[in-house]
Order: sequence, then C-alpha cells, then structure tokens
Amino acid sequence: MPSTTMRMLETYPKSINLDRAKLAAAIDALNDCAQACTACADACLSEDMVAELTKCVRTNLDCADICTTTARVLSRHTGYDANISRTLLEACATACKSCGDECAGHADRHEHCRICADACRACEQACRDLLATIS
Amino acid sequence: MPSTTMRMLETYPKSINLDRAKLAAAIDALNDCAQACTACADACLSEDMVAELTKCVRTNLDCADICTTTARVLSRHTGYDANISRTLLEACATACKSCGDECAGHADRHEHCRICADACRACEQACRDLLATIS
Amino acid sequence: MPSTTMRMLETYPKSINLDRAKLAAAIDALNDCAQACTACADACLSEDMVAELTKCVRTNLDCADICTTTARVLSRHTGYDANISRTLLEACATACKSCGDECAGHADRHEHCRICADACRACEQACRDLLATIS
Amino acid sequence: MPSTTMRMLETYPKSINLDRAKLAAAIDALNDCAQACTACADACLSEDMVAELTKCVRTNLDCADICTTTARVLSRHTGYDANISRTLLEACATACKSCGDECAGHADRHEHCRICADACRACEQACRDLLATIS
Repeated sequence: MPSTTMRMLETYPKSINLDRAKLAAAIDALNDCAQACTACADACLSEDMVAELTKCVRTNLDCADICTTTARVLSRHTGYDANISRTLLEACATACKSCGDECAGHADRHEHCRICADACRACEQACRDLLATIS
Repeated sequence: MPSTTMRMLETYPKSINLDRAKLAAAIDALNDCAQACTACADACLSEDMVAELTKCVRTNLDCADICTTTARVLSRHTGYDANISRTLLEACATACKSCGDECAGHADRHEHCRICADACRACEQACRDLLATIS
Repeated sequence: MPSTTMRMLETYPKSINLDRAKLAAAIDALNDCAQACTACADACLSEDMVAELTKCVRTNLDCADICTTTARVLSRHTGYDANISRTLLEACATACKSCGDECAGHADRHEHCRICADACRACEQACRDLLATIS
Repeated sequence: MPSTTMRMLETYPKSINLDRAKLAAAIDALNDCAQACTACADACLSEDMVAELTKCVRTNLDCADICTTTARVLSRHTGYDANISRTLLEACATACKSCGDECAGHADRHEHCRICADACRACEQACRDLLATIS
C-alpha cells in the first residue's frame, strides 16, 4: 500500500504544482529525518561523553525543527508560493548537510549517530531532488 | 528492515522505561497521523464547500500539533517523567478521538477525510495501548 | 498598547468560549515559557557541568514543545472542543511543574535556570487559572 | 524589565556570535508574528467569506511554522552554524513578506489581517536586520 503521504496527495481536490512522487519522497524523508534527529539528540544526552556531543545535540535539534516545518509546508498545496518552498528547502538541505556531517563524525562510536547521519543524507538528497524541479 | 524509529530505540545507550514495541508503534502512528491531519486541513481548504469544513480544518490543525509534540516527547528517554508522558498521551488520545470523529463525518464525501479518520483511529489506539502500560 | 495576543482575540469575528483576559494571559505565558525553556536547554548544553544537567535539558525540550502546542491550540476558537483544551492544559501544567522543579534545583548555580524556573511557575499558574474556568 | 528573551541571552554562559540586541529583537518579533499568524488563520476560518480567504489561511500557517522554528534556532548558540541561521532567516523573511502582502490585501475588511500584516512586516524587517550582520 502507498504511504499515507502519497495517499493524501492523491486525494487533494485541486492540482498540485510539484511532481507528486518527488514530493511524497521528500515529505517522507523529512519526517523520518526529524524523528531520527529528535532521538539522536536525546541519545547523545545519555552518553557518558555528552560533553563532547553538545554541538551534535544542538544541530540535531535545529535539523528536527527545520525538517518538521518543511514537511508541513510541503504538505500544503492551497495558494502555493514557490518562493517559500524554494528558500525553505534550501535552508533544510543546509541543515541536513550540517547535521549529517556532524553525526558522521561520531558514527564509528555511536550507532545512533550513524543511523541519524544516513537519515540526514537521504533527506538532504530528497530536498535537493525536489528543489531541482522548482524553477 | 525495522523503521528508523525502532532502530533509534535500539541504539539508545541507557535503559528505556516503556515497552519498545508499543513505544515505536505509538511514535510511528503519531507521525503518520500528524502528516495526515496537516494534509487533510489543506485539502479541506481547497474544497468548494470549505465553509462547511472549518471545524474539520481546526481539529486537524490541533491534532497535527499535538501528535507532533507527543511523538517528540515519546522519542526522549533521558530523565523520563511518567507524569508528563501520561497526561500528554491522554490529551493526544482525546484530540485523535475528536479529529477521527469529525473526519469520519465527512468520509463519504471526501476521501482525504476517510484516510485521515483511519490515521486518527489508529493513532488513538496506539496512544491508549501505550497508556495502559504506564502506571 | 495591549499585546498582539489580546488584539487578535478582540478581532476574532465570532464568540469565544473562554474568558479573554485569562486566555490572553495564558497564551502569553505559554509563549514566554517556551522561549525560556528553549534557551535554557541550550545554555545548559554550554555549561562545563553539562553532564549533571541532562535531565534539565530534556525537561526543557519537552516543556518548550508542549507550551508551543498549547499556545497554538488556545489561539484557535473555531469549532472549539473543551475536551482537547482541558486535557492539553492539564498536560501542560504538569510539564511546567516538572520543568519548574528541575530548573529550581539548579537556580542557585545557573541564572538561566532561575529565570526559566520563574517562567515555568508563571506558566503553570496561568494554565491552572484558565483550567479552573473550563467546566 | 528586559524581556525574557534578552534576560536569557544575558545569562548564556559562553560567547554569542551575533549582536544581542538585534538577536533579541528578531526572536521577539518572530514569536509575536507566529502568534498573530496562528490567530489570523483561525479568525479567517470563522469569517463568512472564508472561501475567499483560503490562500490567507495557508500562508498564515506556513508563516507561523517557519517563524516558530526560526525563533528556536536563533535561541540556540551552542555549536553555532552561520549557514543554517542565514538560509533559515532568508526563508523566514520570504514567508513574512508573502504573508504580509496577503494579509495587507484584506486589511481594510478584516482587522485581524491588518494586525497580522503589521506583525509580518515587523518580523520581516527584524529578520533582514539580523541577516545584514551575518557575513
């Protein structure tokens, strides 16, 4: 069965300005990344070496907030404004890149950082794939 | 492969106070419901009969906000406080019940309301299943 | 000049089911508390003794999320549902109590915790004052 | 007494990379704008002519989400990343411009849109003032 995201896109009563497959992929990647970042921030707080992970916690919190907001904005199609979607996707790809880099730096010692880095990379790519379709 | 949610739970470095399977099921249902409600609110805005759907939009917005916040709180285990989890799950189950009822009332005319009602019912149940394990 | 919150309440085009002064006071206290908790979590991350403040960070994050969501729900009056407002206010007062207690425990050593504890106490009281008017 | 925002900035234990006065002004404007937009979306839903205000509701929802997230990111200073702050401020100024323009178009008929347009203009300016200081 298609994800809830795609099923909701398919039942939107008017036309949608973006490619539905890329849009659904981005929204799902954003929600997955937000979940991973929220959990990774908390896992870092419970590591004995938390004092060395404070930048990771902070970047996780930023990335979670920005991904959640971007998923919400992309889930709305009424009164579409390409400028908002484009600049927000750029900010989101930037946050995913920073968080992916930060988590990747701890991936060999913390499995939660490894999983989170993967989610950030996938989300950054999904954002850039969608951005490429917005003129 | 297990969901990102379950993989993150499995890599949390300390003990977790709740059943991991029920916890992962609740977090996934909450994020799915938040996504459905955000999209349903927007789909209602684009229906010709939007004037009859304003209560549905409002309840969708509340339910999306409460589900997103509940998923975040449940994704944190450091310094666990049962009182916060329990009262928030009660509020969330209440919002899902209200939103599920509201959307179900339009389900025969709007497919997005039918899908959203299903997501709300599943989320309410997942919240209550988890609540039953918190003494 | 009245706050933006009160000015927006005064221009809502239909009737509002709650006392406007208590409602505006609660919304302003919630937004103030969310701001303090977000900043306190980050200030704790930058303390040399962050390892002793991880429960404080976590409770701050929960309280910020719950206060922001509660402020949003209380800012909506269309299709009012007393059950959602009441259970959410109970969860929010619980989170503010926990966060206020946690921050108060560090208030003598960290001025940001002292200011945040005050914001949590004020917010808990504003939530309870409003709750008392919802039958 | 200074706002909670400024008092929290003053108690942050390490150095802050941005001008504190401009930072506090931006955070306060963002939270004020988020509150106005959340309330304006709901007020529009209760207008008899809601069918003509659906783009306004949608833009309000986007602007509220983006302003709340931007206020959170700007409230964190640990592990500061100028790229995230800059791109997010650009997205936020874009959303405030769009929402301010949309609300201004209804300001003569709806007082809530007039107040909200003012909050959006003030927030856009505060974002641009802060952006100008980030190289």
